[in-house]
Amino acid sequence: AKKPLPADTYSGRGMTLEQDIDEANLYYLSQQRAVVHKKPTPVQIVKVDYPKRSAAVIREAYFKQASTTDYNGVYRGAYIDFEAKETKNKTSFPLKNIHPHQVDHMREVSKHGGICFVLIRFFQSAEVFLLDAKHLIDYYDNQDVRKSIKKTEIERLGHQVKTGLHPPIDYLRTLDAVYFNGDAKERT
Amino acid sequence: AKKPLPADTYSGRGMTLEQDIDEANLYYLSQQRAVVHKKPTPVQIVKVDYPKRSAAVIREAYFKQASTTDYNGVYRGAYIDFEAKETKNKTSFPLKNIHPHQVDHMREVSKHGGICFVLIRFFQSAEVFLLDAKHLIDYYDNQDVRKSIKKTEIERLGHQVKTGLHPPIDYLRTLDAVYFNGDAKERT
Ligand SMILES: [Mg+2]
Ligand SMILES: [Mg+2]
Repeated sequence: AKKPLPADTYSGRGMTLEQDIDEANLYYLSQQRAVVHKKPTPVQIVKVDYPKRSAAVIREAYFKQASTTDYNGVYRGAYIDFEAKETKNKTSFPLKNIHPHQVDHMREVSKHGGICFVLIRFFQSAEVFLLDAKHLIDYYDNQDVRKSIKKTEIERLGHQVKTGLHPPIDYLRTLDAVYFNGDAKERT
Repeated sequence: AKKPLPADTYSGRGMTLEQDIDEANLYYLSQQRAVVHKKPTPVQIVKVDYPKRSAAVIREAYFKQASTTDYNGVYRGAYIDFEAKETKNKTSFPLKNIHPHQVDHMREVSKHGGICFVLIRFFQSAEVFLLDAKHLIDYYDNQDVRKSIKKTEIERLGHQVKTGLHPPIDYLRTLDAVYFNGDAKERT
């Protein structure tokens, strides 16, 4: 039976958020601001047909768990790497939305000096926040205390990202403020 | 019919080279040297079955042209991005091995301060060379003059990469020499 893909095939309810980020990335690329791409969904290919005079058709394949985050790329010479997550929860971000291998990847990236963060959209208010990986990891490692991050904590530790038309989510502006000391040329 | 994937499904004859690079990347990750991953093969999914009590099965999908390069990641805080190419040609590297969109991507990455290069393996001699994207782009843009890069030119403009057991291809050592001024901590 042919059915639409379940939402969680592409990282949960983040489909719309990811479309907005994809559009922002296209805009940034066209404006020569940054090069950031979404990583393709990893697929385990089992069987392929090669019909004569037409393209190869994959006839059996399975979704694999992604071992990293959704997006990476280069901005101002720096490696940037992030995950996009949307929640319908109004007052907190449930940590079950984050997979252990994603957290491991974020630890590694941070260790090597990459700029690593999560973009969290609260579906109800449409607000988007950038939260540095260090805060996310901190909460993740303390889930015995609390299994979610309160929105008020995300507002305090993170940074609200300007949304609009072009780009829909202007996260590079937030990166400038948070990681590049405002308009300074060099990363601080 | 079930057949092995054609070599060119995964970027030409580079299958073995890519396996070696994947192994090097695993080694580097385990040694906390760098975080570099191969990007998944992009696939256009058309039809998915959802059998009861088992995993979703992709029943119709097509290979998409990759819009970027094979690998990217972070090393010493810098964004690194590269393509792996193998050739059976003994004396030159044919430029038809490189796709226009890969060259475009390399231009963009270089523009934004990323470290961008191609790892070329000469199948016959098993020698591996790192050639900075700027040289590759230069030759690519002058194919009216010559449709390949002579191996002697790759030896002159590029850098031979040490091969061995752990890692099979030690390209980080080459990056240190070429982009980080030997053992200096800061990128030059
Ligand atoms: Mg996501
Ligand atoms: Mg390749």
